[in-house]
Amino acid sequence: MHRSHGSEIDSLIRLLAKLPGLGPRSAKRAILHLIKKRESLMAPLAKLLADVAEAIHVCGTCGNLDTRSPCHVCRDPRRDPSIICVVEDVADLWALDRSETYKGRYHVLGGVLSALDGIMPEDLNIGGLLDRARAEEVKEIILAMNATVDGRTTAHYVTERLTGCAVKVTALAHGVPVGGELDYLDDGTLAAALKERKPL
Amino acid sequence: MHRSHGSEIDSLIRLLAKLPGLGPRSAKRAILHLIKKRESLMAPLAKLLADVAEAIHVCGTCGNLDTRSPCHVCRDPRRDPSIICVVEDVADLWALDRSETYKGRYHVLGGVLSALDGIMPEDLNIGGLLDRARAEEVKEIILAMNATVDGRTTAHYVTERLTGCAVKVTALAHGVPVGGELDYLDDGTLAAALKERKPL
Repeated sequence: MHRSHGSEIDSLIRLLAKLPGLGPRSAKRAILHLIKKRESLMAPLAKLLADVAEAIHVCGTCGNLDTRSPCHVCRDPRRDPSIICVVEDVADLWALDRSETYKGRYHVLGGVLSALDGIMPEDLNIGGLLDRARAEEVKEIILAMNATVDGRTTAHYVTERLTGCAVKVTALAHGVPVGGELDYLDDGTLAAALKERKPL
Repeated sequence: MHRSHGSEIDSLIRLLAKLPGLGPRSAKRAILHLIKKRESLMAPLAKLLADVAEAIHVCGTCGNLDTRSPCHVCRDPRRDPSIICVVEDVADLWALDRSETYKGRYHVLGGVLSALDGIMPEDLNIGGLLDRARAEEVKEIILAMNATVDGRTTAHYVTERLTGCAVKVTALAHGVPVGGELDYLDDGTLAAALKERKPL
């Protein structure tokens, strides 16, 4: 019962509080901030949200989210079409792309195999990946699933399905995160980092 | 440069990252969440934001923000018109009202006096408060500014300006916050709590 503000503001707070990272209190603070910047922030945000909600597409090629399909990555002629980096989720694609070191294409699986959650191969976009891998131009598939049990299982499964395609299948390197302190790392990471040690 | 998503999504992330409590990363996560719940969350949020941005008013009586003026609080006939609680900000009004123990009206000053920030009495809605305090029905003014130096200065100033009005001027009690641990409290709070101790 928020009798201090109207029912519309109330509904707005309730909707905004559903965003990850916001709760009822921070949603209220956000609303007050928005109302203070009504012209410069609130109205443009409302318009862009409506526009994007209207225009958003799942890219038919790679599964990225964009206002057009094929997406920006798939349309970019400067990107190397011979490498495809396979990720679980659009968030992973965006994260990898933020580093700006990878200049190939992507493929979003849309999740990982999980016996627990009942996610089977046919729930993931593996067929699309196989089709793309069979294309003449594709030389390498980088598997960039999360380093979880389900991520590894999925990588293993995808590797098996790719046998027969004339592509090199690689995976992200394991090791000490840059800036990471050894004391805080788990044994698995330390073992991987030791095993994969390199001459300086 | 986020080449992995379109310029519209990019602008949306940049706008959303301006909200308090969100940064570029959490804004991205929020956008992905919104896109996943396009029908149930993104579109309604866009509509409500536009509606509220269009309809929001500063209440002409108390300074609360609402889609109508006078606001919900000022229009509510169940609220006691003889008590006015003076707060710095709309956020404070909403916070006080959340507790649901206060059933009077409010008055939003719109800030506190601050020599440092150059905020003078004429920048605050003190005139409106004096007009309201002179009304026959008003018996008590509760000063609920923050317990900061500027808040106290403002409370002191408002009290002086109210001399001559036939109202009782009160302030929020100081003491140990409910659930607070003594060890973590500052000396000022402890001193106030000791001084204002009560028989059980």
